[in-house]
Amino acid sequence: MPYHPLLHVVLFEPEIPYNAGSVGRSCVAVGAKLWMVRPLGFRVDSAQVRRAGLDYWQHLNWEVVNNWDHLLERLDPGRMWFFSARAKRRFTTVQFRPGDVLVFGPESTGLPQWLLQRYEQQVLRIPIRSQVRSLNLSVSVAVVLFHALSSWEQQGQAPAWFVTDPPSQETSSPKSE
Amino acid sequence: MPYHPLLHVVLFEPEIPYNAGSVGRSCVAVGAKLWMVRPLGFRVDSAQVRRAGLDYWQHLNWEVVNNWDHLLERLDPGRMWFFSARAKRRFTTVQFRPGDVLVFGPESTGLPQWLLQRYEQQVLRIPIRSQVRSLNLSVSVAVVLFHALSSWEQQGQAPAWFVTDPPSQETSSPKSE
Repeated sequence: MPYHPLLHVVLFEPEIPYNAGSVGRSCVAVGAKLWMVRPLGFRVDSAQVRRAGLDYWQHLNWEVVNNWDHLLERLDPGRMWFFSARAKRRFTTVQFRPGDVLVFGPESTGLPQWLLQRYEQQVLRIPIRSQVRSLNLSVSVAVVLFHALSSWEQQGQAPAWFVTDPPSQETSSPKSE
Repeated sequence: MPYHPLLHVVLFEPEIPYNAGSVGRSCVAVGAKLWMVRPLGFRVDSAQVRRAGLDYWQHLNWEVVNNWDHLLERLDPGRMWFFSARAKRRFTTVQFRPGDVLVFGPESTGLPQWLLQRYEQQVLRIPIRSQVRSLNLSVSVAVVLFHALSSWEQQGQAPAWFVTDPPSQETSSPKSE
């Protein structure tokens, strides 16, 4: 484990390797752990996954589990949030906490009804205009991750790397270097 | 033009068609206009762009311009924000306004130094951990778009579709339908 997870991202039966790679890259970027629930639509060591995650997969804290029950043995269902384009509750109306688990469904169908019904008080929607059925999976994950971070910043609770100036400030004072 | 732009997204010399398609999908989702500054690393009508944008490209308000000066003839540089992984100023420290222009560089190199220097007071960073050089382009665009929307929601100024319950509430009351 290269880092202690700030948040957990669960891809339930993901289908597209490029998306999983991009999600992995975002997870490293914010220090989230990536869980993937089988069946997967790709091999985790495939070139497509690694290409989308670039050089970052080696830094990723990730784990594949065989099914939902297997995941529940490892993570607290009380801290889980499920994302569905058809949910009533908007993601901006809840207060995420460090350690929360963010669960996203397969690209083509979204999370199955049995999951949405079992956890119906924990299902959230990212609001979008009606012309679009859903956002890209890796886009949805990142929108929620960074929303959590910026809400923590407002409360003075963001991790140091999110609120600290970078050591090098090339763009703002290029001539002083 | 299928809608009046809420925000403008500029992809400066984008390289990867899948990213442009995904950005287009996000732009339709929030009602942003997509501008692309030549040279592009793909044909806009390519199958790869359309596949990533799924069925949404036809709904997208988009325009390709030949170069930066051509873009300036159409958009207000005073309302532009430039995104760079090496910027000092964080994107959560500014107040975006409807009509703002969000400018993102090529995937492999980011925005060129001459642009970052010319507009150095308007360059912003999405904070990430040092293990990752940058986020995926389409992820970066969406993080900023939804950050603007959620900040407007906090001020009671979000567009109606962002704060209104959807007409169908399948997941929260599946048995009443």
